[in-house]
Amino acid sequence: MKTVHAYAAKSAGKSVEPFEYTLPDIGPEEIDIKVEYCGLCHSDLSMMANEWGMTAYPFIGGHEIIGTIEAMGGQVKGFTQGQRIGLGWMSHSCLHCQQCFSGDHNLCGKAEQTIVGRHGGFADTVRCHWEWAIPLPGELDAQTAGPLFCGGITVFNPIIQLNIKPTQRVGVIGIGGLGHMALQFLNKWGCEVTAFTSSSGKKDEAIKMGAHYVVNSKDGNELKKQAGSLDFILNTANADLDWDALFAVLAPKGHLHTVGVIPKPISVAAMTLIGQQRSLSGSPLGSPSTIRTMLEFCARHKIAPITETLAMQDLNKALVHLDEGKARYRLILKI
Amino acid sequence: MKTVHAYAAKSAGKSVEPFEYTLPDIGPEEIDIKVEYCGLCHSDLSMMANEWGMTAYPFIGGHEIIGTIEAMGGQVKGFTQGQRIGLGWMSHSCLHCQQCFSGDHNLCGKAEQTIVGRHGGFADTVRCHWEWAIPLPGELDAQTAGPLFCGGITVFNPIIQLNIKPTQRVGVIGIGGLGHMALQFLNKWGCEVTAFTSSSGKKDEAIKMGAHYVVNSKDGNELKKQAGSLDFILNTANADLDWDALFAVLAPKGHLHTVGVIPKPISVAAMTLIGQQRSLSGSPLGSPSTIRTMLEFCARHKIAPITETLAMQDLNKALVHLDEGKARYRLILKI
Repeated sequence: MKTVHAYAAKSAGKSVEPFEYTLPDIGPEEIDIKVEYCGLCHSDLSMMANEWGMTAYPFIGGHEIIGTIEAMGGQVKGFTQGQRIGLGWMSHSCLHCQQCFSGDHNLCGKAEQTIVGRHGGFADTVRCHWEWAIPLPGELDAQTAGPLFCGGITVFNPIIQLNIKPTQRVGVIGIGGLGHMALQFLNKWGCEVTAFTSSSGKKDEAIKMGAHYVVNSKDGNELKKQAGSLDFILNTANADLDWDALFAVLAPKGHLHTVGVIPKPISVAAMTLIGQQRSLSGSPLGSPSTIRTMLEFCARHKIAPITETLAMQDLNKALVHLDEGKARYRLILKI
Repeated sequence: MKTVHAYAAKSAGKSVEPFEYTLPDIGPEEIDIKVEYCGLCHSDLSMMANEWGMTAYPFIGGHEIIGTIEAMGGQVKGFTQGQRIGLGWMSHSCLHCQQCFSGDHNLCGKAEQTIVGRHGGFADTVRCHWEWAIPLPGELDAQTAGPLFCGGITVFNPIIQLNIKPTQRVGVIGIGGLGHMALQFLNKWGCEVTAFTSSSGKKDEAIKMGAHYVVNSKDGNELKKQAGSLDFILNTANADLDWDALFAVLAPKGHLHTVGVIPKPISVAAMTLIGQQRSLSGSPLGSPSTIRTMLEFCARHKIAPITETLAMQDLNKALVHLDEGKARYRLILKI
């Protein structure tokens, strides 16, 4: 039994208040994390407002957690007391289905999510199942690493899954919380990187993050100039776009991949895919193994989210800042 | 200079009449094929009717050609006079673009098609550029091999491009001219094969061709029973289908691939792709290297199109038979 001090939304809305709850005795395969930092992600806002119809109140968000192990059960494997770890969107997989055994724990049909039906990281303690606790390499900055565990892995996973090669030309749509990490990854991956943004103010920043070129994604003429040029376009924007124009930017065998939850269905003519052997795909987060690979890559190349940090007691202020689209580029709450 | 005796459509329609034309002197990289057999494909009908707006009249169709080399230019590489070869939908690529140098001659932006802007195989002679002439392995039956060069390679290419593995579960939608070859390929590939057809009369035949299971593609309940089961679904039908139901049949990381030219755009919600890391793709034909690989695979496993043969002078009869959907499963014209 342990009392957790947290911030919760009591009903659908955009603000939180202090809230305490009690954790039962820790299970044999569970880890309790003493939270040091927790990122604030747009999904926290969506969940607070019950946009996806799966929120239980009181609701405690927070799923980009960095902290140390304060307690763990006897069947936890590969961790030591006090070790610094990260926890992202997922906190449990069944470990025995075909997906888990294949290393695709993120596709497990019985996976549990850190803030769905359980309490998240806007708190002094958060509990998870051991396989989703990921050791934080010592070279990484604990304060800024949290967003790697949600936004970061979301854009890193497609690079692995689609087997993107350093010789390829790639594009990133949307230079925000996810896109600014994708630019860094793909630049260090060795690719030629084009950033697509509708915000001209982000051009210089996109180049600093690793873009070699910046194109206005809403300018049809600019898109036409890129026709047939990119092997991989990663969409991080939750927006309806001119898909025909973007497919035309793909080179033969090119992939258009979305991690952005686009409001309307994407419509594509069969010949758009057939003629040049193109594909459209999507993916959710990444597996524990891919997260570990990503962290090692971040350590090697000094890749980090660009963050602003606020105190956890200023969570309401942070929520407004994010909701107004002003975060540059991820927000961190510090306990 | 050579006079070719052919059958041509004089204007948009569904019938042909005898027609002669003269070939200029053969170029250094060209081959003249003495036609023995030529398959009749639905694309011949579409081109005759100018459905795609790119037909020139008089129009000579025929792009599933088997014959022997009767003449060749001095720069032709790797062939001998009299050798038996096949020629499919494509008859020239530039050989020097990035696609050609990568072995993807079928994606060459300057590729020429056998019956677009040139005369096809419903004739005693057809001319092509040497790189698209493919040697026919001696083990293959010349009379039935023609359809491999268009329909066959169209369904074989995705198996190679998507790296389908013998351990996977796969599905084929549409048991017609293309699908009946896809079933044979995927069975011999080692996969568990499900045939999707709306025609209950084809069930037994589909099983003979290599399907382990047959599912009614228009029965929502039957589709629901297959939910999450297939790693790869190959659509060969030129028809609008219940895409949401078919995506639901895909296993995690599953691919829905179309070679069928579906009339309406395919509409897919981002979350359908994201949640289980699925993809939607398409492809055209295959490269000379993939055709050679396919022919070797056909020889090894005794795979052949199922055909009906008519004399070339009965081409009009064959056109009606195909147009009425009665071909089982590919038609061959014999000179």
